[in-house]
Amino acid sequence: MTLRMDDTGFGGIRLLQDTDFFCYGTDAVLLADFAARNRHTRAADLGTNNAVIPLIMSQITEIGEFAGIELNGEAAALAERNVRENGLSDRIHIFHRDILEVSEEFEAASFDAVTANPPYFPQNAGNGSDRPFLHTARHETTATLDDFVRCASFLLRPRGAFYMIHRPERLVDISVSCRAAGLEPKVMRFVCPRAGEPPNMVLLECRRKGGRELKILPALVVRAEDGSRSGEMRDIYRQADSGGSHGLR
Amino acid sequence: MTLRMDDTGFGGIRLLQDTDFFCYGTDAVLLADFAARNRHTRAADLGTNNAVIPLIMSQITEIGEFAGIELNGEAAALAERNVRENGLSDRIHIFHRDILEVSEEFEAASFDAVTANPPYFPQNAGNGSDRPFLHTARHETTATLDDFVRCASFLLRPRGAFYMIHRPERLVDISVSCRAAGLEPKVMRFVCPRAGEPPNMVLLECRRKGGRELKILPALVVRAEDGSRSGEMRDIYRQADSGGSHGLR
Repeated sequence: MTLRMDDTGFGGIRLLQDTDFFCYGTDAVLLADFAARNRHTRAADLGTNNAVIPLIMSQITEIGEFAGIELNGEAAALAERNVRENGLSDRIHIFHRDILEVSEEFEAASFDAVTANPPYFPQNAGNGSDRPFLHTARHETTATLDDFVRCASFLLRPRGAFYMIHRPERLVDISVSCRAAGLEPKVMRFVCPRAGEPPNMVLLECRRKGGRELKILPALVVRAEDGSRSGEMRDIYRQADSGGSHGLR
Repeated sequence: MTLRMDDTGFGGIRLLQDTDFFCYGTDAVLLADFAARNRHTRAADLGTNNAVIPLIMSQITEIGEFAGIELNGEAAALAERNVRENGLSDRIHIFHRDILEVSEEFEAASFDAVTANPPYFPQNAGNGSDRPFLHTARHETTATLDDFVRCASFLLRPRGAFYMIHRPERLVDISVSCRAAGLEPKVMRFVCPRAGEPPNMVLLECRRKGGRELKILPALVVRAEDGSRSGEMRDIYRQADSGGSHGLR
């Protein structure tokens, strides 16, 4: 374990990360920002790792209670420590649990929001990593996309929102999986590294038992022509630096 | 019936259109251009209307034989006339047929490409038109998205390509329908009216019995900031004006 302390910029939140395992990136920030568009009261984060998503969301939303669920013991312990050291033990609760077993811990339909930044690649895809934790975080070794989606569907009340960030290559898998689980995709936003480039991430909002009506937002462009952060990305991170009020917009 | 003659700009093709019924638009041109990226030998166009797609594709591809299938008798007669007057009766054959009954006319797996510009809206969506032909062309009154997809799947040989243009709002329906019919989405391209705007059309290439591997291309932007055609759109139409050679690229 190689620990590193990072300032997230979101409301003074500092984050211990195990650099041997998995450090948070743009995807976690974008997912937190995307989910903060709507008001919610009780949110679960599936595969929360070091709790980066609940920690950021605690600063940019008024959500009163977060459940961070993490299968890996070391990551769950780190998440626990991050929550405690940031003084958020009242709002964020970490559960060292397999998402396949959430029904043993939680009641069905007991959340109005679920977030997930699941492993992007199928189990057999890509070259195996020599760091097994990293492999688990990036590949569907312990839980598949279907597992994440079914878990979210179990936890959400009707009309509750499921927010996910994933790879555009998985768009058909995602569409099929979400609809089959009764999580109807409602809002989709592609993330492009630069204008004119194909997207490398997609943000998705589904609603449990929602009607069939998909809206696609303009793409989010990460970098300007000169390689610096785009205006919208600066907005997302600037709101972070100013202590975070944009959950209230 | 109100007939109007239009120059398409593609290889001198002139097109009689019934302006009471349905005039071809950007979507037909974009679909023809998108399908012309790959080489094929025998193509079917489902709901061919006045045969605009086979007529354009005859000028920008080397496809030897087109089948244009149209349920509406007046549209099929117009398609027939357009094919004859453009001297293409050897290459393009019009079938006055319901796509639900293609198995009575064609053998399974007898095409290597199928194109479709289906009605965009579900039967019950939008306000009813006082022009029933137009309503049929825009709404799924006689055939649903599933019907188009299943018809394409029937006609295509394994690895054969299905090209469709549709509305992004239907992306989940399209994904679910295509995968269920064994037409795996492989290439997706969104069409945006202007840069930075959400897409209003999506181009899709599926392969029958293809593996799960979706590629998303950079969005096609229709208009530049000043409202004139974008560079890529000028390319598509300029190639048309020059008699069309880009099927060979």
